[in-house]
Amino acid sequence: MCSPEVAKVVRERIAREGLPQINRRSFLKLGGAAAAGLAAAAALPARVAQAQEMSEVVDLSHVFATDVPVYVLGATPTREAQVTVQNDGFYIQQWTFGEHTGTHVDIPAHFIADGETVDNYDASLLVSPAVVIDISAKAAENPDATLDVADIEAWEAANGEIPAGALVCMYSGWEAKWSDALAFRNADDAGVQHYPGFSADAARFLLEQRDIHGIAVDTLSLDPGNSATFDVHVLILGGGKYGIENVANLASLMGKAATVVCGVPRFQEGSGGPCRVLAMV
Amino acid sequence: MCSPEVAKVVRERIAREGLPQINRRSFLKLGGAAAAGLAAAAALPARVAQAQEMSEVVDLSHVFATDVPVYVLGATPTREAQVTVQNDGFYIQQWTFGEHTGTHVDIPAHFIADGETVDNYDASLLVSPAVVIDISAKAAENPDATLDVADIEAWEAANGEIPAGALVCMYSGWEAKWSDALAFRNADDAGVQHYPGFSADAARFLLEQRDIHGIAVDTLSLDPGNSATFDVHVLILGGGKYGIENVANLASLMGKAATVVCGVPRFQEGSGGPCRVLAMV
Repeated sequence: MCSPEVAKVVRERIAREGLPQINRRSFLKLGGAAAAGLAAAAALPARVAQAQEMSEVVDLSHVFATDVPVYVLGATPTREAQVTVQNDGFYIQQWTFGEHTGTHVDIPAHFIADGETVDNYDASLLVSPAVVIDISAKAAENPDATLDVADIEAWEAANGEIPAGALVCMYSGWEAKWSDALAFRNADDAGVQHYPGFSADAARFLLEQRDIHGIAVDTLSLDPGNSATFDVHVLILGGGKYGIENVANLASLMGKAATVVCGVPRFQEGSGGPCRVLAMV
Repeated sequence: MCSPEVAKVVRERIAREGLPQINRRSFLKLGGAAAAGLAAAAALPARVAQAQEMSEVVDLSHVFATDVPVYVLGATPTREAQVTVQNDGFYIQQWTFGEHTGTHVDIPAHFIADGETVDNYDASLLVSPAVVIDISAKAAENPDATLDVADIEAWEAANGEIPAGALVCMYSGWEAKWSDALAFRNADDAGVQHYPGFSADAARFLLEQRDIHGIAVDTLSLDPGNSATFDVHVLILGGGKYGIENVANLASLMGKAATVVCGVPRFQEGSGGPCRVLAMV
């Protein structure tokens, strides 16, 4: 997610509210359930039971191609073959891209001035039990649909409380449009994009009431496409968590216990980056 | 691994021997133990027992930085901040690099004209039980040391046969030099590099006698640095397997059961690429 408009919005927010108040340190100062949940996330007990049953690898990543849908028009990656097997005996491509391209991770430093960068982000947070919340029915009727607290509550009523250290994934069905970059971006005549995302209330609920590692979406942005304030980005990244955008194949995980590994290279001082997201089901 | 000399060597090899005869298809045509082993690798039974015990994530990846050691001098990645939180409200870097930089994967297409590319390479092969073979004692005395069939046999005598679908990792201790790029590359006055790698016989043994997913090294090349013929690359990639170079922290896995996930982005028609390598111990 990136946009020239973000600058203005975030500057105004910081002028108005100061830097986000939710960060890992302030969470650790909390007493009771929240602190206990965070402590539990340091080890991997919740994952163990799930991993025992794993029998399949599901690829949650789109191909990182030069025609991927992008938040800012024109910001697609470029590549060129430096050498080829035919001419040179071996084959290597050179790539140029921004860190927020394709299936990729947003790390706190993407929005938070003193936020952690991807090279030093705690690797154990990149391995998580998956929770997939299906909002595809309402998203099919309304591209501005959001994953709300009520959707989380409905999931929990059927499945039990979101486990500690979870990656909470929004399945909106939007990925079906991936091969048509303009339809995936779905901008109206005024340039406002329209596709589903988390609501700010849902992000706040997950940060304050549950113990998550991060969130993931099958769209271009953690926030819904029509957001002008990027609340979900500020909340999630300000809370020391991460977000994965443009995830694929979430429907394959529905109703199954899965452990998701977010394989993002350790880009020096990186704000995130293209990644391989693999689920062990 | 890449070098201007590779072109000549590989062209000569192909002229002399034709294309490599070892590929996945020919393996599948084999009867008996080899074929049975390959069939078993399609599911994940060998991983399950190990994953039950996992309690820790070990990062096997170096930071992807602009001063990483490189096989070809000068072929380091570049980066620039496109936007910053201070100036723009959010932070993104742009990167330019060749696919064989930092902790990265070699996929068959790197050396094999009709070899699989990373975007379509079977994702289930990227999740593997780790086997770490320690040759650090002889590597400390001789930078040209190789991981030989005898080292595999010694490992198996102590640990049992290499499990189906393994990632067989060479721990030479060379990673201790990572922060000094020239010492890591260790070229002599004639430009020949000196650091450990797999011997061709060891690669052949793993391909023909065992059922592996791939191999990994804590040096710049699957072959020892002084190789002029790149036999291990041609064998392993010609066999449809992959190799991971510049792996870190392998000593942390010694004597432990671990499942390794190789998180390489799905670079379009890629010969491999920078990756996150995470072990669940």
